[in-house]
Order: sequence, then C-alpha cells, then structure tokens
Amino acid sequence: MTTPTPSGTSFAGIDLSGPVIQIAVIDQDGTVIGRHDAPKQSERIVQQLSELTNRLHADNQDIAAIGIAISGLVNRHIDRVVSSRDLPTSVSEDLHAEVTKATGLRVELENDANAAAYGEFKAGAGRHTQDMFYITIGQGIGGALILDGRLWTGATGFAGEVGHITIDTEGVECICGNTGCLETVASAPNIVRRAKDRLYRDNTSSLSRLAMNREFTAADMAHEARNGDDFSLMMIERTGKYIGTAVASVINLLNVERIVLGGGVMDAGELILNPIIAEVKRRAFQPCFEAAEIVAAELGGDAVRLGAAMLARDSLS
Amino acid sequence: MTTPTPSGTSFAGIDLSGPVIQIAVIDQDGTVIGRHDAPKQSERIVQQLSELTNRLHADNQDIAAIGIAISGLVNRHIDRVVSSRDLPTSVSEDLHAEVTKATGLRVELENDANAAAYGEFKAGAGRHTQDMFYITIGQGIGGALILDGRLWTGATGFAGEVGHITIDTEGVECICGNTGCLETVASAPNIVRRAKDRLYRDNTSSLSRLAMNREFTAADMAHEARNGDDFSLMMIERTGKYIGTAVASVINLLNVERIVLGGGVMDAGELILNPIIAEVKRRAFQPCFEAAEIVAAELGGDAVRLGAAMLARDSLS
Repeated sequence: MTTPTPSGTSFAGIDLSGPVIQIAVIDQDGTVIGRHDAPKQSERIVQQLSELTNRLHADNQDIAAIGIAISGLVNRHIDRVVSSRDLPTSVSEDLHAEVTKATGLRVELENDANAAAYGEFKAGAGRHTQDMFYITIGQGIGGALILDGRLWTGATGFAGEVGHITIDTEGVECICGNTGCLETVASAPNIVRRAKDRLYRDNTSSLSRLAMNREFTAADMAHEARNGDDFSLMMIERTGKYIGTAVASVINLLNVERIVLGGGVMDAGELILNPIIAEVKRRAFQPCFEAAEIVAAELGGDAVRLGAAMLARDSLS
Repeated sequence: MTTPTPSGTSFAGIDLSGPVIQIAVIDQDGTVIGRHDAPKQSERIVQQLSELTNRLHADNQDIAAIGIAISGLVNRHIDRVVSSRDLPTSVSEDLHAEVTKATGLRVELENDANAAAYGEFKAGAGRHTQDMFYITIGQGIGGALILDGRLWTGATGFAGEVGHITIDTEGVECICGNTGCLETVASAPNIVRRAKDRLYRDNTSSLSRLAMNREFTAADMAHEARNGDDFSLMMIERTGKYIGTAVASVINLLNVERIVLGGGVMDAGELILNPIIAEVKRRAFQPCFEAAEIVAAELGGDAVRLGAAMLARDSLS
C-alpha cells in the first residue's frame, strides 16, 4: 500500500472465492499498484470490505470503484448472488447493496470465472482478440464468454457454464442435478476419483505407492506423469480428451477466435493442453478449429482479482 | 408481383437451400409484398438471380438490396461460401461478388439457419427478445444466435453449429468427421435410421406395416405416433431427449431468453416439444432453465427468405 495513483483514481478488485480475500488495486491504465491478502471473515464480510477500503483510502489510494468476484451464480441484472458456497446465504444475497452502502462506492459484483475471463482478456492470454471463451478447470469447472470485446453474461448473468454441458448422456450424477457433465470427469476432484477407480488395475504406477501413504491430488498426478508414470499420463490425456470434447462443442457453437484455459488442472501444462487440442481438432468443424487459437491462461491465481478490478474500472468509462 | 412499395424501396430475400428458389420481397416495415418461386438453375444461378431481380424492377418493385441464404458454411467476413451442397463449388464460391456485379445491388450473403433465425427474431417466435438461440431440425440440424439484438455469426461466420456438438462421446460417425453429434441421432434421416434399426423388435408397430410397402419418413413416424403407435411415439420422445440434452448445454453456456425450434422434425408439435422441454428441465441449471422460454418457430418454410430479406433491409440502416 504505497504508490498513490498519478490520476488520483484507482480501482480495487476483490476475489472472495477462496478462504483468503485477495485484493488487487490498479490504476486507470491497468497497472497494478498493490496486492493485498486478508483471511476471509465470512459472517462480517461487509464490515471487513468496508475496513479494507478505508485502509486503502488512508494509504492515499483513492478508490473510485470496487469489483467483487464470487463463485456461484450471480444475477448481474439485479446485482444479486443467487447461489454461492463462498459466503453464508444471509450474507451473500444482499452483498452488492450492503457493500455499496457501507463504502459509498460503485460496486461491480461478478461471478469469479467471468472476472477471470475479463482479466485474461484485458491483460493476459486473451489480449488482441475480440471474441474468446475462457474455461477454468480446478475444484469445479467454470467458463465465460467475451463477445465483440465485451463480457457476455447472458439474459440473467449465468452464461458460460461449460462445466455443466453434457458430454455423456449416460454419465455419472453431477452436483448440478444433471448427469454426464464435463465437470463429472474433468474437475480436479473427479480426475482423482477416476484415478482411484482404476488404480487397482495398475499397481505398478508410482501413484499406487503414493496412495499407500496419503490421499493424492490432481497436481500429484501431473507430477508423477512428468516423472514418467504411464498410468498418470494416461489419466491426464483422457481428461484432455473430455475437455477437448467440450471445447469442440463451444467452438462449433460460438466460432470464437481464442479459447483460454486456466485453473489448477491446467498447471499440468502441455501434458494436458496437447491432448485437448488434438481432441478439438478431431471433433470440431475444421474451419471453426482453424479460426480458434487454444492457449493456456497467463495470469494464474491473479486473474480473478485483476479482472474484478478491471470490471470496476471499465464500469465507469 | 403486384403492389409497388409506397416508399419506392423494397428488399428481396432469396432462399437457395432447396431445389426451388424461394423469394420474398418486403418493404421497409417488413410487410411482405410478394412471394415468388422458381426452379433453381444451379449452373447459371448468377444470371438467373439477375433476371429475377430485373423482373421485380420491371414490376415496379424497386429493390434496394438482396439477401441470399444458402446452406453450409458462409464466411461473412470475406463474403464467401466455404462449403455448400446447394450449388456447384465453382458457382458458389464467388456468388457474392458475381451477384453484386450482375445486379449492381448491395448483396447480403448468409447461412440459411442464420437467415431463418433472423426472420424468427424479427417477425416470428423470437419477437420481443434480445437474446435467442434458433435451432432448425430437418434433413440436417442447424442453429444460430441472436445476442443483444444482433445476429452473432462468430469470428469467421460459422457460429451456431448446434447440430455438431457432441452429446455422446462414443456415438456414431457423423458426416462432419466427429462422432456422436446431435445430428447423428436427431435429424430426420437419422430418426428414420434409428427406427429401422429397432423396428424388428416391435413388429406390432403400425410403422412395420407401412415399412413393408415403402420407405417411411420422420413425418410418417409423427403421423403414426399421433394415431396411437407406441413405437413411433417412443422414438420421437427419445429424439426429444437428445435435442433437449443439446438445448440444455446451449442454455447453460449462453443463458439466452428464448430457444426457438424450427424445421420439419418440429412439425410433430407437442409430441416432440414436450419431451425436449422435459429433458432441458432435467439437465440445465434451474435458473438458466427458468430464464429461457422454449418455443416452436412460427414462420415455417418462410423463415429463411423472410430473414434474408430482413438482413438485406437492415444492412442499409
């Protein structure tokens, strides 16, 4: 909390999707002038955000607007959180109105995947495009659309739910109520579930030895695959095929210029990106495939807070 | 070819997707002032369209612009037909430039599903919305998006290919090169194929008796279902489930206000519309489902030519 903005105007982006509140402060040009973390106090989040804003003001960061990103369903048309596991419902449902009242600032409330997409679009892997689709693959799978240079949130703000498109009509049950969603096979917990289901057949896998000592994660699988474990590699490649199937459908439906893939599962790098691209090539219309670059996200865990800050900035322009 | 437009300005919409050229002439308000059909002369289509336009002029219909709709892939950014089975490639690839030269008029060239969607949006089942997805289910399955009141054709003009989103990763081969596309189970020829594959198990079906005398069609199946044939009804209901699976994915991705379903297969009416809606309800996010009306198209076979005419009109405004 040091440099005041030259223009006297800055914008705070706040990521509420994890156990720690992550804040970025940017100036009018999008330059990051501060990053701050604070343990989330879910029950008194409004007061906490008000205090954090006051501290920024006290540090001569003249905040003009706040962007808040939260996971779950956010209805932008009425600025209300419809459902989110990040905060108690009693707190989240009036978040926009309460933070506006408490801070006296303009508040932009947005779904975390939408915020991250906007961050990548403005400052990451989506730069120099007009149309992109962003997918984040981690504990869950989210997505967002940029069309004609603007965030497309749909009729009521829920667009982009690529994790819940059906890729297998007879697939397993999803928490969303559907069966065979992409998320049921390709989110981090589901990659682990699939691996556990099959590991007994491959007891030569280095993952078997790991599993004897502790629970393993999708990140462990990427690590073992990189170290030459065939079973882990196969499971990651299959995951790539599932994701590629969904991306092919997105490309056929939307004919976007760029697909940006982020989230923890993409930390596996080319191990997963290459099978995704190969599957899209097999499934999508050739001219739709050729029109779309498929790339890894660039901003990592910063994407949500940066995007939220940029949404706040651009809401005033 | 009777009434001249009061304003002296009218617009021709030309549907080249069938064996017969279908033309509609509208005035500035969208009122239809003429409908004309002519057998398509594929090899000399440019000359034919030029002659047809001259006849309209001679009838005091002062055509200001022409909209041409063709099936297949049309790249709007460079106004070229990338692939179409409606015309020989040598004729179709330069269609826009040649018709522009031959007529001296502004020409809008568009995919037939996009044109039909625009027609439904302006004058049919999509009126009073800002965001809709149109699906036409007939010999093939096409689709198109209206977002923020405009036709969204994608980065290179191919958006909307809902017939080729994957609903079954292990499904049958599709002409597009993919496997398990919606079209492989829900287009009219594929409904018939599925019925034939299973009919031997249900030799009490009235369709069995029909099949002994001649090839049957998807329309025959709707007719038999309406007359109480359980087998035909079941096949149509299953088709509705497949379509509903794809519609649920569209709704989750795009959160549109309205889904408009047209094409010959939808002539089965509620027999197919109800199972579609039921499947979308089972699969889509509840708030996305609640935000979207799912309705039958209203313009029938007129949608393409009317939409093409309206695209021509609106290109000048």
